[in-house]
Parts: sequence; C-alpha cells; structure tokens
Amino acid sequence: MITTPQAARPAGDGPDRTTALITTKTELRARRAELEGTVAAVFTMGALHEGHLALVARARELADHVLLTDFVNPLQFGPGEDYEAYPRDLDADLAVVDGLVDLVFAPAVEEMYPVLPPTVSVTAGRAGTILEGAARPGHFDGVVTVVTKLLQLTSPQLAVFGRKDAQQLAIIQRLVADLDLPVRIEPVEIHREASGLARSSRNAYLSDQGREQALALSRTIAAARDAAPSAAAVRRALVAAVDRAEIDWDYALALDPATLEEITADHRGEALVVLAGRVEDVRLLDAAVVVATAD
Amino acid sequence: MITTPQAARPAGDGPDRTTALITTKTELRARRAELEGTVAAVFTMGALHEGHLALVARARELADHVLLTDFVNPLQFGPGEDYEAYPRDLDADLAVVDGLVDLVFAPAVEEMYPVLPPTVSVTAGRAGTILEGAARPGHFDGVVTVVTKLLQLTSPQLAVFGRKDAQQLAIIQRLVADLDLPVRIEPVEIHREASGLARSSRNAYLSDQGREQALALSRTIAAARDAAPSAAAVRRALVAAVDRAEIDWDYALALDPATLEEITADHRGEALVVLAGRVEDVRLLDAAVVVATAD
Repeated sequence: MITTPQAARPAGDGPDRTTALITTKTELRARRAELEGTVAAVFTMGALHEGHLALVARARELADHVLLTDFVNPLQFGPGEDYEAYPRDLDADLAVVDGLVDLVFAPAVEEMYPVLPPTVSVTAGRAGTILEGAARPGHFDGVVTVVTKLLQLTSPQLAVFGRKDAQQLAIIQRLVADLDLPVRIEPVEIHREASGLARSSRNAYLSDQGREQALALSRTIAAARDAAPSAAAVRRALVAAVDRAEIDWDYALALDPATLEEITADHRGEALVVLAGRVEDVRLLDAAVVVATAD
Repeated sequence: MITTPQAARPAGDGPDRTTALITTKTELRARRAELEGTVAAVFTMGALHEGHLALVARARELADHVLLTDFVNPLQFGPGEDYEAYPRDLDADLAVVDGLVDLVFAPAVEEMYPVLPPTVSVTAGRAGTILEGAARPGHFDGVVTVVTKLLQLTSPQLAVFGRKDAQQLAIIQRLVADLDLPVRIEPVEIHREASGLARSSRNAYLSDQGREQALALSRTIAAARDAAPSAAAVRRALVAAVDRAEIDWDYALALDPATLEEITADHRGEALVVLAGRVEDVRLLDAAVVVATAD
C-alpha cells in the first residue's frame, strides 16, 4: 500500500511522508501545483536499488519535496537492445521508495508518447554519438527527449543525476543550458567501496581477482587527479593507464564538459575524466571532474 | 523613449501600458516573475508591421500581459539565406509596439546562444523537411529550438502564431504536444482583403493583374471548404486547382495536422489545407483548417 497517512508513521529513520502513485500527466500537473516549497526530481527507469536511494537521499537534503519518475523510456533503446525485456516491477519499486518521496509518476508508454516516435524531439547532436553513444545510436537523443518532457511535466527547482553516468550528466547539463530550461542540475557523487571501486550493481558479477583488476579504473582516476592541474599531465596519465592495459579499456579520456571534445594541452578550466573498460566481460565505468589548465 | 509612465498616457485607442526593453535572460526571468495574472507571448524576428500588430492585438484580448520577443534567429537561416542582411531596426520596432506590450525582449545573439550552434537542440523531424522545409534544410529545426528556448524564458500561459504560416503553426503545435510544454498555442486567423486575398507584405509587389491571378489561392481555399467534409472531395478540389494552373503552384495539399502527411480518402477529423505558389515571381501562401472525413 503506497499511500499511508503520515500521522501513522513511526519517528526516526523510517518513512516519513505519504507517497502517492500517479499515472497520468493531468494528475501529475495537478498534484505538482499543490506542492508548496521546493521540489527535487529523480528520474529513473525503475528497477530501483541502493544507487537510486542515494539520489533520493540527496534530493531530500536539497528540497522540500521529492518527485520520482519510474518510466522505461522506449526512445532510448536501440533496435538491438531489449526494450521488452527490461525489468519492470512497479510494486517492488514502490516498496523501495515508500515514504521517502512525495510522488511517484509511473505513466504507461501511451500516456508519455501518444505518438511514438514523436514528430518533434530533442537531439544531443554530436555529443550523443560518441563514447557511450557510439554503439547506441539514438540513445542520448531518447534520453534528452524524455528528460525534457519530464522536466516540463514536473517543474522541479532541481533534478539529481549521478556522476558515474558522466556523459549523460554532461549532456543533461548541456540540455538545460542550451534550451534555457529553468532547473538546476545537481550532480550526485560516485559512491565507492573502501577499495576505491565505484559502486555498481554489476560489481556482483566480478570474481575476487576481477575486483582486484577493476581497481585500475579508480587508480586511473586518482592518477588523473594527481596529474592536475596540468592538462598535458592529465592526458599523459590517461595514456599511461591505457598503455599498461591492466584491463580491456574502451576509452580513458579527458573531455571539455561543454563540448565533450577531448581537451588539448592548452585547455583551461574543468575537465571531465571518463573511463570505460571491461573486466571478466563486465563493462565498468568511472569518472571524475578535475581542474586542468595549460602549463 | 520606450518606457513611459502609464499615468501620462491619454485615454482611448492609444498606447495604454508601459513597455520595457529587456536584453538579458536574467532580467527577463526577473521581470516575468513580477507579472501577475496571465501572460501571452508573441515571438517575432522584428521588422514589425501590421501583421505583427494583429498578433499583439489577439494576445492583448487573451491575457493580462503581453510579452514580445524581437530576435533574428541565426539557427533558422540556411547557408544560402542571408542572415546578415535580414532587416534589423530595434528603434523602429519599439515605436510600433510602444505602449501595446508590457515587455520587449531583444537579446544579442551571444545572449541567446553562448554556444552556436548549441550542442543540444530541438528537431522537427520529417515534418520539418517537407513543404516550406524542403528547400530550407534545418529551418524548422531552428524555429522549434528558438521557440522552445523563448517559451522556457518567458513562461507564458499562451503564445500566438498566425495561421498563414500553417506548417510552422502545425509544427509548433506538435512541439508543445510532443515535449509536454506547459503552454497553450493560440492560432490567429488569416487577415484577408475584401477580394479574399490573404494579407501579406509581399502583396505590394503584385501588379493589378497579379493581384487578380493571386485570387486562385483564396478561391482554392474556398473550393476545399465547399468540398468538405468529404476527404476525397477535398483532395479532388486541390488537384483540380493545380490542374487549372492559374498560377505557378508549388503545392496544394490537405495534410493530417498531427503528422503533416497527406490525408487519405479514409481520413477522419481536421485536415490542414496548405497552398503555396508564385505570381509574378512573388511567392504566396494560403491555408485553412477544414474538417474532412471518409464518405
């Protein structure tokens, strides 16, 4: 039961607010209009786990109300990717966030996209065709389109996104800047195990030896941080990591966050270090923002 | 002088409100937030004339406040189209609408597009590549991108668009529906001379004989209206008009407003009749919405 009177809640760390499930745009706009104070949005495709709870926790710290969307977006799946097989269990999702968020918006596909694909859509341009987008044509276009729609429907003051999906975060930040969307994007830091390994549900597939190998990612992040603020040194640290080939690297790059182009030795300002590689057939990501400038 | 105290205004048909000129997004958001009641937006590229005043007049009827934007959007000009030569005269524009609108937003290009072209943008898809878009690649993508930005910056309850630019209006309506933008699009009817000729600043280039020939457009609109509600008869009326070849037709089509695809004989609902043709080297448009259904 997702709607529980707040008065009946125990005090302490447990659920402390009534969570309402909403499935239509009309009701969402009406319920949103009733919320006083600030609203933070958390956009998910369901299958909620600990990582999502970290986003919810940050959203709760930053705003008076939290609105979570739970929608498997067909537009961001390519032809070879199994949209139909993506796990969906709304009851389980509601149990995970019950009492932690004010509203859960879980619309049917026909509610979100009366015409599919839509005639007018948002495109991430070249930034969506590189790195994670290289093997997934249209993926980031689908992401920016659904995020734009959800931002219009939920009108939050801020929306939280994890830093581990660094390309997605950078593209969402470009979306907001380029289309003048009136929202603040709040990046949520990567959670790491004591070893430094970025937390991921995929880590469970690694053997003990694989977990050891996977530390090449966080060690490379550390090396890039140590090399900053010299842009040239950051680039050298990334090349050196790939040369050591401790893991099967897809890429290890330092990017201009505004363009997602690789920084040059005369770069000035923030650089986005993005890593992707495979260990024991498990694809792993890591990322960090460093300040890098010309020597 | 664009800002004049309202108290000093004469009563009657003349200007009745103080018009403020704004050039930055930050000030626009601040001034917009101060407006109480409803706001209607009128988006223009300047060079304001009688046609724009009809949009302003409709906006004034429908909302408490009117916000006009005056911005020559580089993104909707193709390589062969002369963006640099497009007429710009802000002082003249301000004189035209002084006292008739609350705010005029006239930003510099760098203010609207700190990065040009933007990384993330809006695309009209196939609907932007046909009819008026066929010879102007990227034009409608530029239109929907700037309109999205201006809607985000001005947060109006409604925005007015003329019916004569029928493809633009249809695409804007798809934009709002497909991206769930919280605004109502208010179409403004085509103004016609007594003869039926749709008013256009280009009519001035026509000889008396040209004006006579140009009536083929409004007569074709009338024929399509008479043929409705039979979808098949509407299509026949348009084919017959083109066959008569009174003018040099570019197209005369009945479209599904949702997809901009041509209606078939089993169509049900509204159909958008769109006409374009040349008389004495002057390109003329006309349009109408008819209800057309299968016989």
